[in-house]
Amino acid sequence: MLAVGIIGGAGYTGAELLRLLALHDQVEVKVVTSRDYAGIPISQVYSHLAGYYEQSFVSPEEDLFDELDLVFFATPHAVSMNLVPSLLEKDIRVIDLSADFRLQDNELWKKWYGDVHASPELLSEAVYGLPELNRDDLLGARLVACPGCYPTAVLLGFAPLLAEDLVDFSNLIVSAASGVSGAGRKASLSNNFSEIGENFKSYGVAGHRHLPEIEQALGKIVGQETKVTFVPHLLPIVRGIHATLFATLKRNTSCLQSIFEQFYEVEKFIEILPKGTYPQTKNVRGSNKVQISIERPDGGSTVVIMVVEDNLVKGASGQAIQCMNILFGFPEDMGLEILGLNP
Amino acid sequence: MLAVGIIGGAGYTGAELLRLLALHDQVEVKVVTSRDYAGIPISQVYSHLAGYYEQSFVSPEEDLFDELDLVFFATPHAVSMNLVPSLLEKDIRVIDLSADFRLQDNELWKKWYGDVHASPELLSEAVYGLPELNRDDLLGARLVACPGCYPTAVLLGFAPLLAEDLVDFSNLIVSAASGVSGAGRKASLSNNFSEIGENFKSYGVAGHRHLPEIEQALGKIVGQETKVTFVPHLLPIVRGIHATLFATLKRNTSCLQSIFEQFYEVEKFIEILPKGTYPQTKNVRGSNKVQISIERPDGGSTVVIMVVEDNLVKGASGQAIQCMNILFGFPEDMGLEILGLNP
Amino acid sequence: MLAVGIIGGAGYTGAELLRLLALHDQVEVKVVTSRDYAGIPISQVYSHLAGYYEQSFVSPEEDLFDELDLVFFATPHAVSMNLVPSLLEKDIRVIDLSADFRLQDNELWKKWYGDVHASPELLSEAVYGLPELNRDDLLGARLVACPGCYPTAVLLGFAPLLAEDLVDFSNLIVSAASGVSGAGRKASLSNNFSEIGENFKSYGVAGHRHLPEIEQALGKIVGQETKVTFVPHLLPIVRGIHATLFATLKRNTSCLQSIFEQFYEVEKFIEILPKGTYPQTKNVRGSNKVQISIERPDGGSTVVIMVVEDNLVKGASGQAIQCMNILFGFPEDMGLEILGLNP
Amino acid sequence: MLAVGIIGGAGYTGAELLRLLALHDQVEVKVVTSRDYAGIPISQVYSHLAGYYEQSFVSPEEDLFDELDLVFFATPHAVSMNLVPSLLEKDIRVIDLSADFRLQDNELWKKWYGDVHASPELLSEAVYGLPELNRDDLLGARLVACPGCYPTAVLLGFAPLLAEDLVDFSNLIVSAASGVSGAGRKASLSNNFSEIGENFKSYGVAGHRHLPEIEQALGKIVGQETKVTFVPHLLPIVRGIHATLFATLKRNTSCLQSIFEQFYEVEKFIEILPKGTYPQTKNVRGSNKVQISIERPDGGSTVVIMVVEDNLVKGASGQAIQCMNILFGFPEDMGLEILGLNP
Repeated sequence: MLAVGIIGGAGYTGAELLRLLALHDQVEVKVVTSRDYAGIPISQVYSHLAGYYEQSFVSPEEDLFDELDLVFFATPHAVSMNLVPSLLEKDIRVIDLSADFRLQDNELWKKWYGDVHASPELLSEAVYGLPELNRDDLLGARLVACPGCYPTAVLLGFAPLLAEDLVDFSNLIVSAASGVSGAGRKASLSNNFSEIGENFKSYGVAGHRHLPEIEQALGKIVGQETKVTFVPHLLPIVRGIHATLFATLKRNTSCLQSIFEQFYEVEKFIEILPKGTYPQTKNVRGSNKVQISIERPDGGSTVVIMVVEDNLVKGASGQAIQCMNILFGFPEDMGLEILGLNP
Repeated sequence: MLAVGIIGGAGYTGAELLRLLALHDQVEVKVVTSRDYAGIPISQVYSHLAGYYEQSFVSPEEDLFDELDLVFFATPHAVSMNLVPSLLEKDIRVIDLSADFRLQDNELWKKWYGDVHASPELLSEAVYGLPELNRDDLLGARLVACPGCYPTAVLLGFAPLLAEDLVDFSNLIVSAASGVSGAGRKASLSNNFSEIGENFKSYGVAGHRHLPEIEQALGKIVGQETKVTFVPHLLPIVRGIHATLFATLKRNTSCLQSIFEQFYEVEKFIEILPKGTYPQTKNVRGSNKVQISIERPDGGSTVVIMVVEDNLVKGASGQAIQCMNILFGFPEDMGLEILGLNP
Repeated sequence: MLAVGIIGGAGYTGAELLRLLALHDQVEVKVVTSRDYAGIPISQVYSHLAGYYEQSFVSPEEDLFDELDLVFFATPHAVSMNLVPSLLEKDIRVIDLSADFRLQDNELWKKWYGDVHASPELLSEAVYGLPELNRDDLLGARLVACPGCYPTAVLLGFAPLLAEDLVDFSNLIVSAASGVSGAGRKASLSNNFSEIGENFKSYGVAGHRHLPEIEQALGKIVGQETKVTFVPHLLPIVRGIHATLFATLKRNTSCLQSIFEQFYEVEKFIEILPKGTYPQTKNVRGSNKVQISIERPDGGSTVVIMVVEDNLVKGASGQAIQCMNILFGFPEDMGLEILGLNP
Repeated sequence: MLAVGIIGGAGYTGAELLRLLALHDQVEVKVVTSRDYAGIPISQVYSHLAGYYEQSFVSPEEDLFDELDLVFFATPHAVSMNLVPSLLEKDIRVIDLSADFRLQDNELWKKWYGDVHASPELLSEAVYGLPELNRDDLLGARLVACPGCYPTAVLLGFAPLLAEDLVDFSNLIVSAASGVSGAGRKASLSNNFSEIGENFKSYGVAGHRHLPEIEQALGKIVGQETKVTFVPHLLPIVRGIHATLFATLKRNTSCLQSIFEQFYEVEKFIEILPKGTYPQTKNVRGSNKVQISIERPDGGSTVVIMVVEDNLVKGASGQAIQCMNILFGFPEDMGLEILGLNP
């Protein structure tokens, strides 16, 4: 059994790790930290976990990580960058759901997150945890930086087009929408139900932290700089991301559908929908699956890709567990055989 | 033109006063205070008010009330009780949407609100602002205590039964549900969309501050103490209260429907629905109306009353304006001729 | 492996059976019927099931049940009563999620469902499928009538009080609220999102088909007729039932909490919440669990019980699988080890 | 007083006409037709209209239009095209909220709506009812074709850019999202709350009927053919459209904000938001207002325009009344002085 710890276990991605790991055959969750809830039973804060976890949250100060094989960070940004080095020194592997090791450029991190990075020397070692695009890099990784929720959907949607050099990567457009759980579990006026219910709006149009992450990963695919216009919107739902991607074809092709089907042929978590059917967030709610549709309206030069995921699962905790399975040689879908909750 | 001020104008009931007063022919809103937004244009905080208010919120410290005829308090409890005496001294009338003057018993207020009351001498002067039950008392009032949102619905539903001495008032049961806006505009974890969306729960079952207010008002109708079991629930909607009331008939009667119709015959804002049709919160959304249905399942001794209102209108700001119209001799529905927003 | 068929597999309870059985180790779903979708792959109608079911829906006319061990009916009422006798003759067991065999009184069935019952001789044989209250009766049953979604919640909440003879069973009050999925998967104006969203209402107050079912089951507990006032409401959520129960104590007791805890001590799917915490539908979303809280406001004679379940799981398909596990000697929670989806 | 009739008055746009006209000083609604509800009081179908309309719906067969000044069609497509000629002959003006006279090309209409047009001779006479873009054409019009809900938002957002020849009109991209009420009041599986709640999806990506309407109107502005990629999405809200528009700048400009502000300077219903703030559907809920924001991420060549409206008001019935006011010389905002319902 793998001995696992979760730092920041009381947030939504922490709770989702707990939900998913409860049924993982090869994992035992030994330590779950939370500053706010230290000493309080997990099942009291999250009664949907009752019967699966008897332990309480503990304070992160306590030195309880030594015997662990793996630590997940489910923290806000600027936490893990301070703690990862000492964990790695103790030969504990780290899967970081936060943003700290996603950008490989120290300066870029500072620009978007406002701080000097505490462990810049690890930026190049950290492996970006999107298995469908870089599974091989994950084998043997000590430190995994799990992608943001938007980047996961956007990258999986654009990757086949860019890998096949089909579209103009200097003018990629993303209109995406997320459920509110993506903003985390916290007191907030802007996420108050009265502000969000029966409402829809865009936000962060002038610049969103997931944009440099998207451009960095797309740039690796094409070996050049890419240019993405990224407009996120806030949906009055709890879970789910829907990304609508627009790109301009560089050359005519009649086989977009089969290009996607082949690109993801072996992937258990990626489903290319039949032509003419479109993804819905409810089809993947609670599951680690991604649904993708391809459309080329009126046979024109603009291709439209639609992608859905559950932001807390494939967009965060499910993907982290998928990475864990790869790191430790378990079947990639162990603990992730969960069907979407529909309706 | 009536010169009016609003203290606490940036909350939901304050904004709702502004929405409704914007179209009132006899009112000019001169002063709107907010500690948090002092100096910021009203239309920047609430762009649905753009074009109707050019002014900014001002700090309540500033002494801008002297020239006013009327001040509304749209504040949390324990604010108005400190400020009302000086306003009354200046011959400014006060309509208080907060809880400070709803309970007439000083000790009861302390028990439920935790503080010593700052102006206990005014408790007996304050007139409870539920026009359908005590319109005459409101004529000439200097200080009006507007009912809570739940009490408005519950009292209007029980009043005809108790006035006619039809039911056992020692065992009244209320199962009510409110939209989230009733909790006000504030940062809050428990009202985060992710906590409320696709969810339903009860709260405050062991004791809710609206209970003593309900029992006090019902007690006045029957001249004795009444006993109410009050269970509020939280709905994943923004606006609306639905109260389902249960009472035991003391004697047989075949004319419940007509008793209600007669009791509210002259009331413009109360609609008794035809037998067999039930109220829906959407029918009164945004309007000052109340819908009531009466049912006696299987002809038994239990009578079921269903009541809906918009918690921000008839449950708060609309009712306050209705009271203002009475105090100043305007037609009672002036500025309140607003149809429900359905769908 | 148990060979199983589902009649009416394209509705929500059918789809939920498929979702849950996909991960059941001892079951193979051989036949799934649907008149509307015959010939269409299951995964095309419900893409959340893609990867788990390769087969298509088939027409119920086809004689494909002969080799099955068990048939689930996930049909509207008045279907199974015509088909069950021939299945039983072939030694196929039947678990019926519809209403056809819930009422044991032929006349009562006719009164509430409007039809003459096609198989009245089986009414007394059918076992009511609420394991927590009658597990022993289920052993060896040929025909199980699964309770309605409301009755499951109401009965589990009232049972300890009635079994201990603590409350006046001639005046029980239920104020319950259900998500829309309880109304099934069909074209409907009244369940159109535009009618339900941002709305709340009661319905069926004069009489709901689940009332006689509740009174029948409660009557069995106390050995006398009981009288229930039952007011259902419609919630703007997809899944979830919340029942708020009111009863009058016949004698004083200080141990309501422990009475419930003991009554359900061995039950894996029933969770009695700590005093002062209340159930939320989201805590059991997607899972077979029930949460119950007990409150006695102000120490008075009215006891309030709050119960939540997922209407499609413990209120329908999960409970049906729980019954199946009992009938065939599997561990009762096999295939039902699913945690609630929270948030 | 203007004598007005509404054909198809029981749908959502019909009911919205009734809600708005109830408070219009110069209009009397004489006839409201509905096949389904003929003979039933309006207030019974829509109790939010109780107190404002005493009459019943009537069957459209009855010849009650002769004395009217104006008829609104709030019908599905392919109704008005059969009835308009006889109304015009009687000198009754027509404002058509349906699609029948929106496209001026007979063949295009047939392609997208599947039928031969019944009154092609009127296509060129019909005036497109978007006052902000063609107010002058509306003066003296006999037949007004009100724009679709999506086109209203999209055209108002693109118009300043195209009028100023600022962007490449051969590659315009629209990612828009609508509340469910846009699909009308009808029994429907796909609009069942259980299908829409907690869900988000695109639809009609391969081709939506509002696309040719958008391209026709944009083409008029630039005097050439334009090319739009239009992806609509379905929001789990009742009311509201949000359109996110993407265009490529042909030349650099630092004054996008002021271009929009000047273009709509005199428009009472168009609000250009301050730079850096974005529109929200709730800000215009129930009102005839449109909010627009302009953003140019990273100072690049892609300009992003965000537009919100209430699909039932400015997207349908409010706009129809605005057109009526112009046709009959009333102040353009008469009856439309309604503030958005926020929260």
